[in-house]
Amino acid sequence: MLIVMKLNAPRSDVERVKEKILAIGVTGNKGKVDPELFLNLPGVLEAIPVTKPFKLVSRDVKTENSVIQVDGIRIGGRELTVVAGPCSVESRDQIIDLAFALKNLGIRFLRGGAYKPRTSPYSFQGLKDEALLYLKEAREATGLRIVTEVKDTATLAAVAECADILQVGARNMHNYSLLEALGSVRKPVLLKRGFAATIEELLMSAEYILSGGNSNVILSERAIRTFETATRITPDLNSIPIIKKLSHLPIIVDPSHGIGVWDGVTPMSLAAIAAGADGLIIEVHQDPAMALSDGYQSLKPSRFGRLLEKLQQLAPILDRTLTRLPESAGVGR
Amino acid sequence: MLIVMKLNAPRSDVERVKEKILAIGVTGNKGKVDPELFLNLPGVLEAIPVTKPFKLVSRDVKTENSVIQVDGIRIGGRELTVVAGPCSVESRDQIIDLAFALKNLGIRFLRGGAYKPRTSPYSFQGLKDEALLYLKEAREATGLRIVTEVKDTATLAAVAECADILQVGARNMHNYSLLEALGSVRKPVLLKRGFAATIEELLMSAEYILSGGNSNVILSERAIRTFETATRITPDLNSIPIIKKLSHLPIIVDPSHGIGVWDGVTPMSLAAIAAGADGLIIEVHQDPAMALSDGYQSLKPSRFGRLLEKLQQLAPILDRTLTRLPESAGVGR
Amino acid sequence: MLIVMKLNAPRSDVERVKEKILAIGVTGNKGKVDPELFLNLPGVLEAIPVTKPFKLVSRDVKTENSVIQVDGIRIGGRELTVVAGPCSVESRDQIIDLAFALKNLGIRFLRGGAYKPRTSPYSFQGLKDEALLYLKEAREATGLRIVTEVKDTATLAAVAECADILQVGARNMHNYSLLEALGSVRKPVLLKRGFAATIEELLMSAEYILSGGNSNVILSERAIRTFETATRITPDLNSIPIIKKLSHLPIIVDPSHGIGVWDGVTPMSLAAIAAGADGLIIEVHQDPAMALSDGYQSLKPSRFGRLLEKLQQLAPILDRTLTRLPESAGVGR
Amino acid sequence: MLIVMKLNAPRSDVERVKEKILAIGVTGNKGKVDPELFLNLPGVLEAIPVTKPFKLVSRDVKTENSVIQVDGIRIGGRELTVVAGPCSVESRDQIIDLAFALKNLGIRFLRGGAYKPRTSPYSFQGLKDEALLYLKEAREATGLRIVTEVKDTATLAAVAECADILQVGARNMHNYSLLEALGSVRKPVLLKRGFAATIEELLMSAEYILSGGNSNVILSERAIRTFETATRITPDLNSIPIIKKLSHLPIIVDPSHGIGVWDGVTPMSLAAIAAGADGLIIEVHQDPAMALSDGYQSLKPSRFGRLLEKLQQLAPILDRTLTRLPESAGVGR
Repeated sequence: MLIVMKLNAPRSDVERVKEKILAIGVTGNKGKVDPELFLNLPGVLEAIPVTKPFKLVSRDVKTENSVIQVDGIRIGGRELTVVAGPCSVESRDQIIDLAFALKNLGIRFLRGGAYKPRTSPYSFQGLKDEALLYLKEAREATGLRIVTEVKDTATLAAVAECADILQVGARNMHNYSLLEALGSVRKPVLLKRGFAATIEELLMSAEYILSGGNSNVILSERAIRTFETATRITPDLNSIPIIKKLSHLPIIVDPSHGIGVWDGVTPMSLAAIAAGADGLIIEVHQDPAMALSDGYQSLKPSRFGRLLEKLQQLAPILDRTLTRLPESAGVGR
Repeated sequence: MLIVMKLNAPRSDVERVKEKILAIGVTGNKGKVDPELFLNLPGVLEAIPVTKPFKLVSRDVKTENSVIQVDGIRIGGRELTVVAGPCSVESRDQIIDLAFALKNLGIRFLRGGAYKPRTSPYSFQGLKDEALLYLKEAREATGLRIVTEVKDTATLAAVAECADILQVGARNMHNYSLLEALGSVRKPVLLKRGFAATIEELLMSAEYILSGGNSNVILSERAIRTFETATRITPDLNSIPIIKKLSHLPIIVDPSHGIGVWDGVTPMSLAAIAAGADGLIIEVHQDPAMALSDGYQSLKPSRFGRLLEKLQQLAPILDRTLTRLPESAGVGR
Repeated sequence: MLIVMKLNAPRSDVERVKEKILAIGVTGNKGKVDPELFLNLPGVLEAIPVTKPFKLVSRDVKTENSVIQVDGIRIGGRELTVVAGPCSVESRDQIIDLAFALKNLGIRFLRGGAYKPRTSPYSFQGLKDEALLYLKEAREATGLRIVTEVKDTATLAAVAECADILQVGARNMHNYSLLEALGSVRKPVLLKRGFAATIEELLMSAEYILSGGNSNVILSERAIRTFETATRITPDLNSIPIIKKLSHLPIIVDPSHGIGVWDGVTPMSLAAIAAGADGLIIEVHQDPAMALSDGYQSLKPSRFGRLLEKLQQLAPILDRTLTRLPESAGVGR
Repeated sequence: MLIVMKLNAPRSDVERVKEKILAIGVTGNKGKVDPELFLNLPGVLEAIPVTKPFKLVSRDVKTENSVIQVDGIRIGGRELTVVAGPCSVESRDQIIDLAFALKNLGIRFLRGGAYKPRTSPYSFQGLKDEALLYLKEAREATGLRIVTEVKDTATLAAVAECADILQVGARNMHNYSLLEALGSVRKPVLLKRGFAATIEELLMSAEYILSGGNSNVILSERAIRTFETATRITPDLNSIPIIKKLSHLPIIVDPSHGIGVWDGVTPMSLAAIAAGADGLIIEVHQDPAMALSDGYQSLKPSRFGRLLEKLQQLAPILDRTLTRLPESAGVGR
């Protein structure tokens, strides 16, 4: 902390600041010292924090990359992770069929929303528990691991029972009660960056989960709100190299929400991996024109397959790999 | 909804769009029709929504201003509302003493945080249930009505039992599970605008509460995130006249968080009322330099009293009133 | 400047930083030391500037408010300044008629665009030199002082010959060649804040003009770009108290561009003055529906007159005055 | 244009709108019809533009990609373009030495600032005409083509005489007088996106140059201002696929300013090309720690060489090529 005094601050003001510093030093402090504690003392012009407020998520605490194990699959290592599936689970047939299609493309993680937070109370909010049943069935039939969103603490237990990875949506990144609850869950958490959250706040939200005892956190860059209106939000790919310096946690990118139109998903997926992301979470739907939500930004499986081929070509340039295992499909587990 | 077709879209594409319109018309739709339903059809260039997505909060549904009754006091009428108090309840003495000081200044609403959502898991999170007890005691001793934040559904019942007005913080404006729960609570809700929420989203969050059955919602403009770094956030006072046109709900402004430094609170309070706000929520603390949170933006009671005098002079210019009743202060002390 | 070294920076890195500090100290430096000079040295983690980069515009250099004299009228003192007129000069009759209407309302400054910077090369760019002639005629007929925009250095001499105050538009706030040229002009400059400029950058642009020898600069807050789409831009009224602390220069607000719709201009004008602005620049047009530009945000003279009455009531609450002198209106017509 | 009338707008209001539409139709209109022309008519609720305001830069006018020829080298075709060099020309030796180093790496375009627009009047503003001389000498010695910034109309002739490509900086993207002047220059223009400019505004600024008669415009994405403070600005890579759909003009990315720290330049360069950019403009300096400006974001030639190798591996995945011709170095032209 750098305390800048006003030019003509009297000796007594300086002494009062000194006392406060001593008081804080004696009682000890967890995390960052709040600049406010000094700003409101007389004679103080500025109080500039020098150290970062996060601890457990920081590279200072853990130098090597964290690799999150999900039922035997590693996220954050050399191997790239690709999560795919529809925005919402819409029916049993839809999700089971798509799960097999994805498995045949060599995918190992299926995403699908059961509980959907929506801006309007009148929009489709997901099939809820019914969707969780279909996701479990898809898992059993294909062996795909399930990534689905947890919307609140009330449904956390039910969702955690079904999910291999619990997704926290952008609007819940600041829901600290939910983050605290996720600290004591034994499942990995995919934490999406809020659309108005700074990188520091994303890391602080991850800190909530780690400090609660759950160190299996995967960060996810989506996109942030800016003045630009040509796309709904603007992906901040700068955040990839910046977060890689600050934190040991893996980070995957959501290009579907990031650009919001299906024909921009392929270039923005390649861009995210080129920037250093550990993986992607992509919306795929058999019939995007008929999707109940986010159809406009969803890829058909055939186009998604071509994207995967490009990613396999790209990976070695970045010292990464992307393994696809379609041949092992069909047996389930 | 305006559907713009591509210049060379074949007749068959146009027919498909027509069918979809008919299908939607036949099944009926609640609220706004989602442009996505058309965007993903072949041949469609743009789908531009024409009507607003909110209903119950809209002036189209209710022309006159809503006046919220809080234990006999009216919010949203000619009389301006001023809510004052500390960011956090820090001790029994602090809140009781301040409640009396505010009562003597003619204030009728005491704010004070019991459960505090904080960006860092290591920051002070409020005295919680202990603070609720002190707030109740302050209410009994002074007759001031209590405004305090509800952080999650788990603590809603306890907070609702104490509060006269339930405050939803900026970070929870998108917490739809909490908003749904507030729809069935019999207490007025003070809904703060999220720091990255559009005006439309604020109104949609209010729509959640109204559509759940609770029409006693007071909106609150705080400030939004922008590129400017001289202040932490930027108050969007445009939102006052804009919301007054779109909605019948009252709106009050939080100038303390809006500018973030105590010596800017007085001008920004006057500006908010001049822009047409129905009231203010202001941080007041006996000893800002010793406050556990937000001290730098808190006013001392004496300076707050001078602000109230200015507000009383300003009110009649805007055809408003600001009544201060220190003399009727129940028992006093 | 605070230089934060990496935890394990070797002694030699620290020595290299020391040498650089000495080198800079010896040669002297104008204004702020650039943090970059240190950031690229090995071992350096952060370089945090502590002092502000502006000098001549700063309160540190001049404690009392600057009052700009325009042909005997004072801007920045106790008296509020109101500049009014159309976005563009559209015809001789339009501007002369409006000038008389404004004079009869007690206004002393007429605004009107002759050279108009427009986003599209196909939009109306102003009547140019013809408009300058009409403005001069309006000045001679009514005694109103003229405020008009200077678009580039090529037309500066012609515009300066006509204008009493040279306006620099938001898009030219970063046009340093124009700012340099204005440093050697003997006319006051009204410098609008760019829609993506920080407060610090606005002050640095003023610094260009002052350091060139022209200290007659009036700042103007307009509005900044944010994610909000309900209004085109968002006025940053926080900037008024912040700039009043940092700088001695007067600041006036443009509420017409700030909210962009005529029925929001009155509340936002009152808000700007309540926040501490020294005056307003407002778009007024006899027949807004027929205006060639900005009609939607223009007030009719009758409504503008009612706003002036409100401002006269508001001024004394803020220890300001607003004098209107229709009776002294030279000849009238 | 979609005109939405108020629910209860009388017949006469509708008639007035009809008349205006007819009037506009009869007189003809260039480019977009301004929504304002309708917004200020009574009874009108909204006026929503449906067509895009740009013409000559649009894919509607020219379907295939534009390829800009610069002295025999093609920009915007299959071959990627890499422009490299220091932020500022600092001395004769610096620029000549670096030009040879870049030539040996197979680079064909040398960037270097002669006239530098700076936020502070006290910062280094470039070596100006002296720098132009050094750039010419570097061109003669190495055959590298020169890219340098033109700051204003006054120095345009001198800069154009030296430059093979005239760069317009981000702060000048809205300088319409300069853009008009560039319309009649016979040199290609590299037009940087302003840090608060929308994609549509960037295209409109290009439209100024094309409509003036110069169709050799190369767009450049740099980065935009957002609330994020971890990096100075945020590159909007979404703009690449979006602009490729809207316009036929080539677009290259400036990753150095986009991330602002040298160790982020390599990943963000790869990301930009993966997103579909036609090339890069990168800051390279022999001794970044000693650079007079932007040293912190500059690469050393050795590291830049390794980036070029990665780019050569990446290009074929995207059906592009990157040719490097170090062997032809040393002869000059």
